[in-house]
Amino acid sequence: MDQQLIEKVMKQVSDELAATKTASASASSTAPACDACCGDSVGLTEFVGTAIGDTIGLVIASVDPMLTDVMKLGNYRSIGIIGGRTGAGPQIMAVDEAVKATNTQVISVELPRDTKGGAGHGSLIIIGAEDVSDARRAVEIALNVLPKYFGDVYGNEAGHLEFQYTARASYCLEKAMGATRGRAWGMTCAGPAAIGAILADTAVKAANVEVIGYSSPGNGGTSYSNECILTFTGDSGAVRQAVRAAIEVGKKLLGSLGGEPESTTTPYI
Amino acid sequence: MDQQLIEKVMKQVSDELAATKTASASASSTAPACDACCGDSVGLTEFVGTAIGDTIGLVIASVDPMLTDVMKLGNYRSIGIIGGRTGAGPQIMAVDEAVKATNTQVISVELPRDTKGGAGHGSLIIIGAEDVSDARRAVEIALNVLPKYFGDVYGNEAGHLEFQYTARASYCLEKAMGATRGRAWGMTCAGPAAIGAILADTAVKAANVEVIGYSSPGNGGTSYSNECILTFTGDSGAVRQAVRAAIEVGKKLLGSLGGEPESTTTPYI
Amino acid sequence: MDQQLIEKVMKQVSDELAATKTASASASSTAPACDACCGDSVGLTEFVGTAIGDTIGLVIASVDPMLTDVMKLGNYRSIGIIGGRTGAGPQIMAVDEAVKATNTQVISVELPRDTKGGAGHGSLIIIGAEDVSDARRAVEIALNVLPKYFGDVYGNEAGHLEFQYTARASYCLEKAMGATRGRAWGMTCAGPAAIGAILADTAVKAANVEVIGYSSPGNGGTSYSNECILTFTGDSGAVRQAVRAAIEVGKKLLGSLGGEPESTTTPYI
Repeated sequence: MDQQLIEKVMKQVSDELAATKTASASASSTAPACDACCGDSVGLTEFVGTAIGDTIGLVIASVDPMLTDVMKLGNYRSIGIIGGRTGAGPQIMAVDEAVKATNTQVISVELPRDTKGGAGHGSLIIIGAEDVSDARRAVEIALNVLPKYFGDVYGNEAGHLEFQYTARASYCLEKAMGATRGRAWGMTCAGPAAIGAILADTAVKAANVEVIGYSSPGNGGTSYSNECILTFTGDSGAVRQAVRAAIEVGKKLLGSLGGEPESTTTPYI
Repeated sequence: MDQQLIEKVMKQVSDELAATKTASASASSTAPACDACCGDSVGLTEFVGTAIGDTIGLVIASVDPMLTDVMKLGNYRSIGIIGGRTGAGPQIMAVDEAVKATNTQVISVELPRDTKGGAGHGSLIIIGAEDVSDARRAVEIALNVLPKYFGDVYGNEAGHLEFQYTARASYCLEKAMGATRGRAWGMTCAGPAAIGAILADTAVKAANVEVIGYSSPGNGGTSYSNECILTFTGDSGAVRQAVRAAIEVGKKLLGSLGGEPESTTTPYI
Repeated sequence: MDQQLIEKVMKQVSDELAATKTASASASSTAPACDACCGDSVGLTEFVGTAIGDTIGLVIASVDPMLTDVMKLGNYRSIGIIGGRTGAGPQIMAVDEAVKATNTQVISVELPRDTKGGAGHGSLIIIGAEDVSDARRAVEIALNVLPKYFGDVYGNEAGHLEFQYTARASYCLEKAMGATRGRAWGMTCAGPAAIGAILADTAVKAANVEVIGYSSPGNGGTSYSNECILTFTGDSGAVRQAVRAAIEVGKKLLGSLGGEPESTTTPYI
């Protein structure tokens, strides 16, 4: 009986310990995906919603004239804002899709050095619209599709891998990543940066693609993040093949530094 | 009796678990405030004390001539140094008050990208004096008032908000933030940066203030931190009103990404 | 009997809690040292091995021609890559030794802002060789000696100290740190940066050395890390004496912000 008692207590304790570990693990990576649905509880007209990666979506119906110049908004007064602590690529992909589907335009894309202690970036993307309802709609779409584009972000305790692919790039990828609108576009990225260098070589050898850009910690294209990033274009089949080859290699290399790298949502490439 | 035993054990275990959680939470944010009182135990004449934000205060009575140029000290040989892992704004405010009260001058203010995995900056501030006792006195004052200026820094697991206000800016705010000496000065700041953009708009709409500067991750004024920062001046009542309006909005927005944002000390604005 | 039972359960629980704490503490600092021995399990010809600081060693036998320009490889096609999340100094020292011992050359050294939430840098070092077997040999040597050069990296919950010393600098220190080949070279570094400023003054006052460079968060030489770094040369005895004096002072100052600063391997200076 005493033994049973001990076991019962120990089980409950070990369950609680597991919960604590999980909580601290998830706190150090990314927040769970959540739909754009909390507007009522926040009670601010500017608030649109939140999503994975500590991402928040916001709108301003009419930016104060004192700020339009310092915020470099051009002629836009109605803006949408999407920004997160973790991930620039997923948010850029999500806004690319949102801008394609709405009457809005990308004003600026900035890459803070963040990821909450991780090796990569956060994001701050501003879009402009004639009418705030268009900006709000675009932000909603971006938040809703964001979990998809976290699908091929893989992480473990040592670092992360990120891959993106689209058959037809649009305005946000053009602005932020030098993609050509209407053409296929792919990206390989890893932190620590050493792995990203190998993934770049893997991708260009795996298929007939054309390099758009290569970024490393101290040579531009990053905000001193610990990443090497390759972007490329080509036939959509070739671009996808190049990305897929890099995913396989990336998982093995990052896995050598820690546990099996895992996606927090569902891979889409 | 068995049940009581289990409950007694479970309570003690759950208390210990709570202590563990608290410890890891505080480790990832800021150190507790502590007075400038540990000089004796360290046993170095350069040591003045420590304070909240992993901040340390130091003096050098006579900097070696080999370093005065590379450290850009001008004609000063006696210097005070205040720097922390978390927070640039609070340290700048504290030094502003310290320089006002002593015969010292601000030599340089640098903003490392830090906050121990958070979205913001750390700080490195160097002040100069004719006599090292003046530098030491200024550092002591700064360390002592520092907890006050952490009062309107609010944080949760997703990010932070920072607000500062003074009715009369002095030399450190002039040097670091472009404030005009003797005039009121206010600041709104949030990470993730998206929230900071809304706070800027909230502040300028809430009262009749004049913008001094706007900083974002990739457009200067930050070291690629995940923050948008607005600084402004005006009538002291208006500046305070603008800051207060932003505090209300900031707490709601950051709260949408996590728990209720909380101050580690006592709000002063 | 009940009391014994409680004590038994409490002991086991407290052991488990201690294990959890240790795990989270080590997760936030550096990975354990491990030899370059996991190549077989990864199954990629590019993989050489891993080591302390989440460091990975890799080679590419023939970099794709599309990448040689964007990666700024000059005429080299066979390269070795060494990069980690934590530590630039140790990796630079390790590669310095590896290049000295092999037929390879340093192509580039980049310093991402990293250390997994710490105050310092990560690293990305690329070396070139005529033959990939030379590059592989150099990477193996660097990974094997890396734990030695983490010997005088000391950390606690508030920050870190880093010291390096060599009686004869070679190509990597020349490229990355402005050292003169064949001469003694020393480095003092601390985060938060305020402590690093004191260590610089301590070092130059302790012995007859000549300053090579001084780096601070916003004045170049760092990627906005929260560090002040001094590098210097001179008679090898003097350089070592200067470094040793700074180690003593650094431990006291960093210790004032937290626990006793400890090395993760074995001090060598």
